Amino acid sequence: MPIPTLTSQARPSTFQVEALNERGETVPTAIAGEHALTMYLDKRELVTLMTLGAAPEHLALGYLRNQRLVADIGELAAVQVDWDTGSVAITSRSLAERGVTIWDDAERADALAGRLGRRTVTTGCGQGTVFGDLMDEIDRIALPSGARLSEEVLYTVMDRVRRHESIYKVAGAVHGCALCSNEGDSRGEILRFVEDVGRHNAVDAIAGWMWLESVGGADKIFYTTGRLTSEMVIKCAQMGIPFLLSRSGLTQMGYEIAQRVGITMVGRCQGRHYLLFTGGQRFVRQPVTALA
Amino acid sequence: MPIPTLTSQARPSTFQVEALNERGETVPTAIAGEHALTMYLDKRELVTLMTLGAAPEHLALGYLRNQRLVADIGELAAVQVDWDTGSVAITSRSLAERGVTIWDDAERADALAGRLGRRTVTTGCGQGTVFGDLMDEIDRIALPSGARLSEEVLYTVMDRVRRHESIYKVAGAVHGCALCSNEGDSRGEILRFVEDVGRHNAVDAIAGWMWLESVGGADKIFYTTGRLTSEMVIKCAQMGIPFLLSRSGLTQMGYEIAQRVGITMVGRCQGRHYLLFTGGQRFVRQPVTALA
Repeated sequence: MPIPTLTSQARPSTFQVEALNERGETVPTAIAGEHALTMYLDKRELVTLMTLGAAPEHLALGYLRNQRLVADIGELAAVQVDWDTGSVAITSRSLAERGVTIWDDAERADALAGRLGRRTVTTGCGQGTVFGDLMDEIDRIALPSGARLSEEVLYTVMDRVRRHESIYKVAGAVHGCALCSNEGDSRGEILRFVEDVGRHNAVDAIAGWMWLESVGGADKIFYTTGRLTSEMVIKCAQMGIPFLLSRSGLTQMGYEIAQRVGITMVGRCQGRHYLLFTGGQRFVRQPVTALA
Repeated sequence: MPIPTLTSQARPSTFQVEALNERGETVPTAIAGEHALTMYLDKRELVTLMTLGAAPEHLALGYLRNQRLVADIGELAAVQVDWDTGSVAITSRSLAERGVTIWDDAERADALAGRLGRRTVTTGCGQGTVFGDLMDEIDRIALPSGARLSEEVLYTVMDRVRRHESIYKVAGAVHGCALCSNEGDSRGEILRFVEDVGRHNAVDAIAGWMWLESVGGADKIFYTTGRLTSEMVIKCAQMGIPFLLSRSGLTQMGYEIAQRVGITMVGRCQGRHYLLFTGGQRFVRQPVTALA
């Protein structure tokens, strides 16, 4: 399948300012970048996202994917980020090859406008939009019932995320997401790690990369530093990933949707602690070692 | 000035689920509520917010206020929350008294539709929408130059927030905001404390209460547990509050907007530590006590 050509316009993630601390000392302090990025699909403005800018092309793709605005990556010819104008232009193949935009198709334009009009501003951070009919979609998702996550791999993921270089350690004010392997020798390894000022941007950037590289979710584990709200669970399920881990807690709707979609959700992952909330049938705890 | 009549439909903030911990024990765990709340202004759907539901009427008012959809609270007759339908109906006086909706005025309906159409999905959490022209408004805001915040009052605010009863302590997964006094004997006292699964909902709920009660921002201090992103700074400035404190860090745009609007912004407030980033002219540090 043809894939779109992408620019490679990551922005520097941190910059330094001076602050005054409680002892009256001037302290050089790293802070996280935050940039407005306006998305255009075949020259039509879609939305403006506020982003760290570390993976803007993947973010744009993941947004289109997770909002279900484009069904097939083969439809897209190019994703071009231009920070001078704070914009990302996504061009369809039909525009690139025949001069016809996605919006020229009246039926499709109506459907897209409908989706864009039914935005729900969600709990999350960052991007925070899903569409009302995502819940219907949730009921059509079947996560792999045979997948298993062992406690050992859970701890491996937690250790690797903790040791990973991160903007958070330097500047705070960002959320991180990690896509990890749950297969073969690489089990527990981090495949992608994305941070953003909005935690939904981080998820979308990973979804965009998976879409671009035709990476499936069935043999993966998703880790987020953020809270397990409704939208986080929906997005993880949309990516087909059966395991969702977080350092943080969860909300009622996150819990209810996790139950409904049958995802294995583990919260409060810190140190050697965790709380398994849903989907326990996929989780394998170590046998308790008998006391000597 | 007439004020709208309000329902009083706070939802229970937490409920309990069972989780399995690392020792295989079943642990009753409190989790934060999360509910969809769809706003209607004179029967026209505006947006769906995901909220904890602790202050839904104030949230609806604050949303209208901070998005600049209604200029004058005297225009509103009623704010009615109905959780059976997950909706809040805001009725204007002209509809209540003359049967004419805000949307019947073609010019106004156009302006509102324009504002709703230019949503920027921001960094933040929760609600995460501002409108493109807020930056123009920022330049018209003049925060009181004579206001002062002493280090002693800063520490008082931090202590009170730390000791305050909170859903966060019980269930996590929420952000909190506090509006504090910076005047007279009540200096440093918490006047309002709101938590929500979306941190912008918490800010908006406080803004809605201030609007309803005609409370000004000049002699107040605003504290948030969340990060100091662009939108958080904009909203604080819109409320006319010269002091913005946070336990967390900040982003580049949060910093730049804080400089532009001249707000006094203090981040990383934890224990006896803080970092003063902008607006130092309003901050009064204790004189250093000479060593004995």
